[in-house]
Amino acid sequence: MTTTKAYAAQSNTSGLAPHNIERRTLREDDVSIEIDYCGVCHTDIHFAENDWGMSIYPVVPGHEIIGHITAVGNNVTRFKVGDTVGVGCMVDSCRICSACNEGLEQFCQEGMVSTYNGQDRHDQQITYGGYSENIVVSERFVLNIPSQLDPATAAPILCAGITTYSPLKHFNIQPGHKVGILGMGGLGHMGVKFAKAMGAEVTIFTRSESKVAEAKKQGADHVIISRDPEQMAAATETFDFLLDTIPVQHDLNPYINCLKYDGVHILVGLLEPIEPALQASVLVMKRRILVGSLIGGIPETQEVLDFCAEHDISCDVEMLKIQDINSAYERMKKGDVKYRFVIDMASLKN
Amino acid sequence: MTTTKAYAAQSNTSGLAPHNIERRTLREDDVSIEIDYCGVCHTDIHFAENDWGMSIYPVVPGHEIIGHITAVGNNVTRFKVGDTVGVGCMVDSCRICSACNEGLEQFCQEGMVSTYNGQDRHDQQITYGGYSENIVVSERFVLNIPSQLDPATAAPILCAGITTYSPLKHFNIQPGHKVGILGMGGLGHMGVKFAKAMGAEVTIFTRSESKVAEAKKQGADHVIISRDPEQMAAATETFDFLLDTIPVQHDLNPYINCLKYDGVHILVGLLEPIEPALQASVLVMKRRILVGSLIGGIPETQEVLDFCAEHDISCDVEMLKIQDINSAYERMKKGDVKYRFVIDMASLKN
Repeated sequence: MTTTKAYAAQSNTSGLAPHNIERRTLREDDVSIEIDYCGVCHTDIHFAENDWGMSIYPVVPGHEIIGHITAVGNNVTRFKVGDTVGVGCMVDSCRICSACNEGLEQFCQEGMVSTYNGQDRHDQQITYGGYSENIVVSERFVLNIPSQLDPATAAPILCAGITTYSPLKHFNIQPGHKVGILGMGGLGHMGVKFAKAMGAEVTIFTRSESKVAEAKKQGADHVIISRDPEQMAAATETFDFLLDTIPVQHDLNPYINCLKYDGVHILVGLLEPIEPALQASVLVMKRRILVGSLIGGIPETQEVLDFCAEHDISCDVEMLKIQDINSAYERMKKGDVKYRFVIDMASLKN
Repeated sequence: MTTTKAYAAQSNTSGLAPHNIERRTLREDDVSIEIDYCGVCHTDIHFAENDWGMSIYPVVPGHEIIGHITAVGNNVTRFKVGDTVGVGCMVDSCRICSACNEGLEQFCQEGMVSTYNGQDRHDQQITYGGYSENIVVSERFVLNIPSQLDPATAAPILCAGITTYSPLKHFNIQPGHKVGILGMGGLGHMGVKFAKAMGAEVTIFTRSESKVAEAKKQGADHVIISRDPEQMAAATETFDFLLDTIPVQHDLNPYINCLKYDGVHILVGLLEPIEPALQASVLVMKRRILVGSLIGGIPETQEVLDFCAEHDISCDVEMLKIQDINSAYERMKKGDVKYRFVIDMASLKN
């Protein structure tokens, strides 16, 4: 065990503050990673503040981790000291169920082990995330960061990126498809970049006229103001796919009505419950699909990193010192970030 | 124009009574069909009683029509006088949009013309359904009834049959799949037969212990009592597909939880709205799909008739005289029919 500096929440109201944690001694398949950058995901806030009633304190958030390897276990084959690597939303799974065998560890029958607030399968310790000096992870759950990527802007690919890339890839988005992106935050702006890179014609749905210029700047071919009934009516039955990244409850019915028959509405947010209620007819009358999607498996997370390197895609980020994390959370709650905060973990040494 | 005997509802409370209607003079692509049998669908009740607020009186219900051809228009090529034929839920569409070109006339961009309470695209007359002596329909919307099928029990294939066959076929049900059928009425009992014929392992979900024997008799490999939390918990993540034929509002969440990752919950009922509300997590956490399905196109309706002939599948029916239609509706409202009423239209001549 090694004592490591971190930032942790001690209760749902405490905010984050410096806190020493223990990292395990390397197992044979582990690597130790000194963390250089960590993206800030809205999920981090939900866990720090126990919004979902499942937080185990102290909570050390952070699952968009970029760093470099400082030590490797005896059986590690894929990495060596000095490699630039990433760790995303999970650090283990059963590794033998059909989902794990398919590289869909996020659907592991025994449940994936989350990067933080998960429970290690071997020593039963609660896992601590990336708001810390270092992390120890089995190499199977460590990603290679292509040299073309800037490590700082690559961090959010590990959650915001894979969450939007995975469903677009799963449903085989390609040229000729009309894709709508709902919401233009950390996830939505990545969704636009991926859908464009896959060749789709992309429309951003936004509530506000004031975001039209920004949406176009992000690469959208078109913008629809979702509050304008005329624009929504004109969009009826015109889309093949909608990627819904809106993080708060909203009426899905008018959006789903914008899908052609056999169109697909992809939900990545946990709207609990979906209200206003869904109308069955919007699905039944046009054989439309409502589907959920959850991050992506490890092979696909590597794939999205390579895809970003190939297509020169990065996340728009605002760099942060760890000491400013609490004010960053407050800004995120207001949607005041373009589009993702990334912590420069060098600040933790100050 | 020809005057024809029929049974019609004149208002939402009148019940059905004898009423003379006019059938159009044959157009060049029309056939005239003397109706031998007409299945009774719950939709008939909804239109007779204006449950959906869109009925145009007089309403002559009936869209599970079997008869024989008595006359053909000059350009008719597929049928001749004497042929046994069927007419299902629609009698026309634009015929040129992408959906019509794909044989998915139910998703026609200009809207399909329903067999009753629709509006003819040429003379703008309201359409009258199969509770009548005869019907005049363009041959493109007329089905061939294979000689192996008993015409009386074949009638419900034209709605209850295609409605359940179409999604099972669309999602490529095959041996190795575990399929659950929700509800055991006219639609559900056909779903069991189709899923079995496609090679799936089939489970019927029912609320009542008293239906277990009947479910097994219908061919189900297993029965789950949906009111028993232990049985539902044991079924978590075990199904590939659920075909939901329950015609009333119900909580979808516990059923969807029975699906494996990538599992598909198929809705064919118009639950307006879906309440209790759906939880996004039941979709998101396992990439599950909720999809609607609406009858089937004309080519697929022919396909299901041929499939039934090949696999010796028929609907379990109770024969009815047209004079008893109102009491039949009352019984259907209580779920008291195994599993479909079919009207012997010879009774209309009495």
